[in-house]
Amino acid sequence: MGAALALAERGRGRTAPNPNVGCVIVRDGIVVGRGWTQPGGRPHAEAMALAQAGEKSRGATAYVTLEPCAHESARGPACSNLLAAADVARVVIALGDPDPRTNGAGAARLRAAGIEVIEGVSTEEARRSTAGFLTRLASGRPFVTLKLATSLDGRIALASGESKWITGEQARAHTHLERARHEAILVGRRTMEIDTPRLDVRLPGLEDRSPRRLVLSAAGELKSPVDIAKLEGINHLFVEGGAETAASFLRAGLVDRLLLYRAPILIGGDGRPALGDIGLTRLGDAQDRWRLVESRMLGKDRMEAYERA
Amino acid sequence: MGAALALAERGRGRTAPNPNVGCVIVRDGIVVGRGWTQPGGRPHAEAMALAQAGEKSRGATAYVTLEPCAHESARGPACSNLLAAADVARVVIALGDPDPRTNGAGAARLRAAGIEVIEGVSTEEARRSTAGFLTRLASGRPFVTLKLATSLDGRIALASGESKWITGEQARAHTHLERARHEAILVGRRTMEIDTPRLDVRLPGLEDRSPRRLVLSAAGELKSPVDIAKLEGINHLFVEGGAETAASFLRAGLVDRLLLYRAPILIGGDGRPALGDIGLTRLGDAQDRWRLVESRMLGKDRMEAYERA
Repeated sequence: MGAALALAERGRGRTAPNPNVGCVIVRDGIVVGRGWTQPGGRPHAEAMALAQAGEKSRGATAYVTLEPCAHESARGPACSNLLAAADVARVVIALGDPDPRTNGAGAARLRAAGIEVIEGVSTEEARRSTAGFLTRLASGRPFVTLKLATSLDGRIALASGESKWITGEQARAHTHLERARHEAILVGRRTMEIDTPRLDVRLPGLEDRSPRRLVLSAAGELKSPVDIAKLEGINHLFVEGGAETAASFLRAGLVDRLLLYRAPILIGGDGRPALGDIGLTRLGDAQDRWRLVESRMLGKDRMEAYERA
Repeated sequence: MGAALALAERGRGRTAPNPNVGCVIVRDGIVVGRGWTQPGGRPHAEAMALAQAGEKSRGATAYVTLEPCAHESARGPACSNLLAAADVARVVIALGDPDPRTNGAGAARLRAAGIEVIEGVSTEEARRSTAGFLTRLASGRPFVTLKLATSLDGRIALASGESKWITGEQARAHTHLERARHEAILVGRRTMEIDTPRLDVRLPGLEDRSPRRLVLSAAGELKSPVDIAKLEGINHLFVEGGAETAASFLRAGLVDRLLLYRAPILIGGDGRPALGDIGLTRLGDAQDRWRLVESRMLGKDRMEAYERA
């Protein structure tokens, strides 16, 4: 399942409105098929893995990060039917698909075809991997990551505006990799006008993974954070600032994941803060909102990821 | 030497003007004496360890974190003479004593007495352990640790001033332990007046380790950070804030170690910043000033210590 989860990551940021899924097919201890949801959402991971396995899928075990779909579509067949037709012996599923068109019906169809189904393997990891799709289904909006790159004292620029570069090369490369995992990047109007950031992916081999760019602006399509519910084809949204835009997403309760890069420097109180006013009036309200899920040194900088507690 | 360094920590914050030293005496693989500099600076670590070892010091190996002193004093004999008189076979020294009254003379006297002397073992650790004494000798002032306890976005209080508690119980206990390792704690006048912090050590068994309390104030003895050079009997100074006091020490280049506690909460831009203006005008000047030397989770909070790079 670890291998299937890694494959699922390959599609992350490119499969909306579909979930990014991974699939590995194993027969007699040998991997005979590997698949992941392709850009735009089709083919599905299972279809790709089965195509690769061919005849070898007979009697094999398929590991999938999300329950195989039960619904036919003009864009392709139902994966539960494909798996049954390929005569696999067993399907191991990390997470049930809450899409009302599947929601248990995929697993039921497999069982009805005489296939052994094992559910609940690496469910937590699969939930994280599929967070964009799950958030869209549950809340009708993309999964939002807010990125902040600060000094030790929480500043993102000097008083002069100078901010290139607070973090080092490795942390910046990591940000580019994170961009590639999102369908869209959003910044505030002022950040766009003043900093004119490129907001693209500048990593060898991933140049074509640059996400759609969005601007939060009183004059535009996205006037307020809640307008992200209108966005189509975006499961993962990466919010890159500035401080007022970041604060507006936090005030609206629309940040699912904090991605922090912290450089070992001090800027001082005249520097620009990472966040505007987030509307906090009692310290108790700030507690237990965020849970550390990842922490790593990137050169001299520390990267931390937090999710809602 | 690790054991001797651990013993040296026992005296830290109580031995000024003397260095906090540790000593372990080993014969035939068995520890026969352990000593550390006593409060006020006497007896020295070697004298204590030799007294414990008694006759067993004959032919033994003594591990000391700092070169044994060569100078007699009204307050006690020279440790190099004590070690020679005790007939130890070997002395292992982590760090030479830069005190001009010793500065190699201690090791020379041991060698002259036919004792084998090995130098340069765990020198870096000993330098850190003896930082207070070394800073006083080299710069005529205490070694200064600046403590900051902040939110993820670098705030130390809400706009209302509410700051109890940003960090959790374990981080606060760690701060109390750090206080016990310093001869004095310093805060700014406003922090003293508004917060009336107790600034004591509230840990079971260490209540008597509460350091001297100092206030930076235009009306007092300490008007500016440079006035810490006037302080006597203080090898280690712990600066606890507020933001302007912290900034004034940084502006003056008088911070040797940063001790950061960071809670997994966001406060927002209307909260109070950890630092005032530190006089930074170019981002390049902020780079490579601080080197991470320790990092640890304390409950949900992260503790980090940085030293001058």
